[in-house]
Amino acid sequence: MFFNFRKCVNIITLTVRKSHSIKRFTHRKTDLTKVTYNVQRQNFNELQQKHIDFFRKLLGEHRAVMGVSNLEKYNEDWINNLKGSSAIVLKPKSTEEVSHILSFCNDNNLAVCPQGGNTGLVGGQLPVFDEIVISTELMNEIISLDDNSGVVVCQAGCVLESIDNILAEKGLMVPLDLGAKGSCHIGGNVSTNAGGLRLLRYGNLHGNVLGLEVVKANGEILDCLSTLKKDNTGYHLKHLFIGSEGTLGFVTKVAMQCPPRSKHTNVAFLGTQNFGKVLKTFKKAKQDLGEILSAVEVIDSSTMEFIDEKLNIKSPIGEYPFYLLIETSGSNESHDTEKLNTFLETALNKHFILNGIVASEPAKINTIWSIREKIPEGFKLCGAVFCYDVSLPLEHYFTLVDDMNIYMGNLSEKVFGFGHLGDGNLHLQIEMKEFSKEVKDHIEPYIFKRIKDLGGSISAEHGMGFLKAPYLDIARPQSAIKLMRDLKILFDPKGILNPYKVLPWRIF
Amino acid sequence: MFFNFRKCVNIITLTVRKSHSIKRFTHRKTDLTKVTYNVQRQNFNELQQKHIDFFRKLLGEHRAVMGVSNLEKYNEDWINNLKGSSAIVLKPKSTEEVSHILSFCNDNNLAVCPQGGNTGLVGGQLPVFDEIVISTELMNEIISLDDNSGVVVCQAGCVLESIDNILAEKGLMVPLDLGAKGSCHIGGNVSTNAGGLRLLRYGNLHGNVLGLEVVKANGEILDCLSTLKKDNTGYHLKHLFIGSEGTLGFVTKVAMQCPPRSKHTNVAFLGTQNFGKVLKTFKKAKQDLGEILSAVEVIDSSTMEFIDEKLNIKSPIGEYPFYLLIETSGSNESHDTEKLNTFLETALNKHFILNGIVASEPAKINTIWSIREKIPEGFKLCGAVFCYDVSLPLEHYFTLVDDMNIYMGNLSEKVFGFGHLGDGNLHLQIEMKEFSKEVKDHIEPYIFKRIKDLGGSISAEHGMGFLKAPYLDIARPQSAIKLMRDLKILFDPKGILNPYKVLPWRIF
Repeated sequence: MFFNFRKCVNIITLTVRKSHSIKRFTHRKTDLTKVTYNVQRQNFNELQQKHIDFFRKLLGEHRAVMGVSNLEKYNEDWINNLKGSSAIVLKPKSTEEVSHILSFCNDNNLAVCPQGGNTGLVGGQLPVFDEIVISTELMNEIISLDDNSGVVVCQAGCVLESIDNILAEKGLMVPLDLGAKGSCHIGGNVSTNAGGLRLLRYGNLHGNVLGLEVVKANGEILDCLSTLKKDNTGYHLKHLFIGSEGTLGFVTKVAMQCPPRSKHTNVAFLGTQNFGKVLKTFKKAKQDLGEILSAVEVIDSSTMEFIDEKLNIKSPIGEYPFYLLIETSGSNESHDTEKLNTFLETALNKHFILNGIVASEPAKINTIWSIREKIPEGFKLCGAVFCYDVSLPLEHYFTLVDDMNIYMGNLSEKVFGFGHLGDGNLHLQIEMKEFSKEVKDHIEPYIFKRIKDLGGSISAEHGMGFLKAPYLDIARPQSAIKLMRDLKILFDPKGILNPYKVLPWRIF
Repeated sequence: MFFNFRKCVNIITLTVRKSHSIKRFTHRKTDLTKVTYNVQRQNFNELQQKHIDFFRKLLGEHRAVMGVSNLEKYNEDWINNLKGSSAIVLKPKSTEEVSHILSFCNDNNLAVCPQGGNTGLVGGQLPVFDEIVISTELMNEIISLDDNSGVVVCQAGCVLESIDNILAEKGLMVPLDLGAKGSCHIGGNVSTNAGGLRLLRYGNLHGNVLGLEVVKANGEILDCLSTLKKDNTGYHLKHLFIGSEGTLGFVTKVAMQCPPRSKHTNVAFLGTQNFGKVLKTFKKAKQDLGEILSAVEVIDSSTMEFIDEKLNIKSPIGEYPFYLLIETSGSNESHDTEKLNTFLETALNKHFILNGIVASEPAKINTIWSIREKIPEGFKLCGAVFCYDVSLPLEHYFTLVDDMNIYMGNLSEKVFGFGHLGDGNLHLQIEMKEFSKEVKDHIEPYIFKRIKDLGGSISAEHGMGFLKAPYLDIARPQSAIKLMRDLKILFDPKGILNPYKVLPWRIF
């Protein structure tokens, strides 16, 4: 038997960077969200001159921006799926300014939409009607960095990659990594409980965020900005703001524990025959690589066809039904390489994998990672794409892709799946020639019910946002939804914070 | 220069087990908590025959236990510091029974005290007056264990060590370890957000608990029992019950992610000249041991004197001002040993450490760990001991011990400190000839204000319980305390769940 296993040489001609800023394309006209989804506007006040005067006095004209063309990038998402009609974006620099804004909006019954890097995929960051956008883009200061304890404190608008670059100088890293790291803000990451590529190794934000400062709907500043790893003094309030998508409070500062930056990284890109072998390879990787395993991603052949068509990105190892990207990060190069080689030899000998390449130099590592991270760039080049970010038990991880392929029949161009296998997190896409609300209604809630039947979650890491909010009752039992409503009323009695998000907007 | 560095041989004659069941000693008479602390009973109903009849009909006589001697172990803590006067302990086996009990108690305005293994050190688990004790001791079933995903689901009364033993058969481990593991219940661990010895490596319970089932004060069952690693469907409710010490709900089931059990463990026990060198050693350990570092504990010379006096436990390496216990856990014995040896050689050459022993065999590892884990056993052999579990920035970690030594002067027998250095968590003890409320009042709130001034937390991992609750206003800002009160009222309007705990009992 011949295996084509070798060190990564220059067989991949891509020169893309690993992380990328999200650029907006305007080739596709987006209809207004409120029209497409037939949403009823809640009873908030409309923006009046006296409100504008207040904001301009507080922030100056350059930080209280108006005008349709100036607002475009705050009203639309980067895959042109949704479009709000906000008339003003506010750009506070400090917690106190956020406090003044929210206090004023609460008093005047004006709805607001907090926005970070505008990289979300379920519309949690976009106005649905004319909500006032409060952008964190000028709240981008690193407040402190303690390289002894590994704790960074920063404002909510710091771009994830910028924080990581600063940490790198101290031998530390952000315990979170995702494709949009060049654009997304840490406040948005926290508010959506972002997961990403290395949750498997470093855990989730509930474990890594040590403290938060939050402004409540009424403008009150809530100081939960602990920088201590252990702090059991009363209720753990900060967690209510992690993942509540700006509907309970506006995150202004974040304290986060940051692990030492690994000294050496290896990445293997592997081809397998079927999903059963993918799972066997994953289990073996956990056993053999143990503490140095830092990412396990899977890509199916349809996804590879998709990025070939849209982005001219090809598999560097030829065609296989499934591809695995396995990363190790550790403190000793020779130990790590030895562990990886042992694992790969065993996986080959047991026929878990059929082929593969390994990279250990940064440029080549980035090239391999870019295959995985570039996938969403292709979405912008479709007529339309419906994205489903779900969690599933590993044994059913690809069942959903097969099911949806059958269910869609000729209604879609392509159904494909990839994702963070190590966390049971699948990204399933349905590519369409053009956007069709009817087809979307055909897909949903069918797909969400199917996910639930398979024991999964209808939102793994993207959140409920606007698009999934109507399906909360599929995701969670009534007792939990009732408690969420009670909390929303307690934290934001007038409902001004990010309305039409998380809680079903047809009901709340 | 001569260093006495060597592999651990039979120089330690201790034969204690690493984990131990907490045994209760009765040599010291404990006064009633309500008397010692002059607490005002809140306006709950007293237990009447009709209530007893209800409980006995629901649970049978053997699971609705009465009688002073039967109740003793539920009314008192293991270091004989506190004593309640509950007249009945209920032992439900199922969530539904807990639901029936709480619904009845809420309707009848009867206060309850949830209790796990009764191993707490701040009295969160004990009745203060006649609260009905609801013990989880018969809720001890493992519900499921998926060795593919590493997720265990179990009832709240499972003993931590029992879960770990079952996980061990599947090559997994509980991501939590503490001295009381032989007694404490997972429900209590979750309710107190227990930290323990390996938080440094595996993170805290907010990161590792995937789901909870909780019964609310009114008996309503709240199902947040997700078993998925990523699940962003609405507010992250479970975190409100992690660390709220049974005051917001009664945890009945826990789903937890469990990491692979490390194949090899090494433990080094080291002597250092001063605390500055302790910190240098710790920093070097993080750099050199990276991903295999699993625990970093520190013990000062006064603590070593204390366990020598009380338990006849001696340092196996002679006397030093500070001792460090450093553990590595990894997947490859030779790699791990090589990393550890490199680290130790460097630390010796740089004079960070003066002496040490290393153990890699389980029995010898346990013997070294027992030096650290046996310390609390000595508390029971004091006249009295005031225990302070605090977090401090690393640069001030031992400042507090020095300060309190000066502050106490001749008022105490000994002030000593040890703890989880890797997490900035110090356990400071003040040993007394006998309990004195006056001396306690002399210590507190002085010590808590000092901790706050040093940038620390007055409770790292033990919680606020009964003893620290009056000092919540030192620990947290008013805005946070107000929100805690609002949440308490929302979750438990009648305040029947574990009264006099967490929130200041002189005020709430």
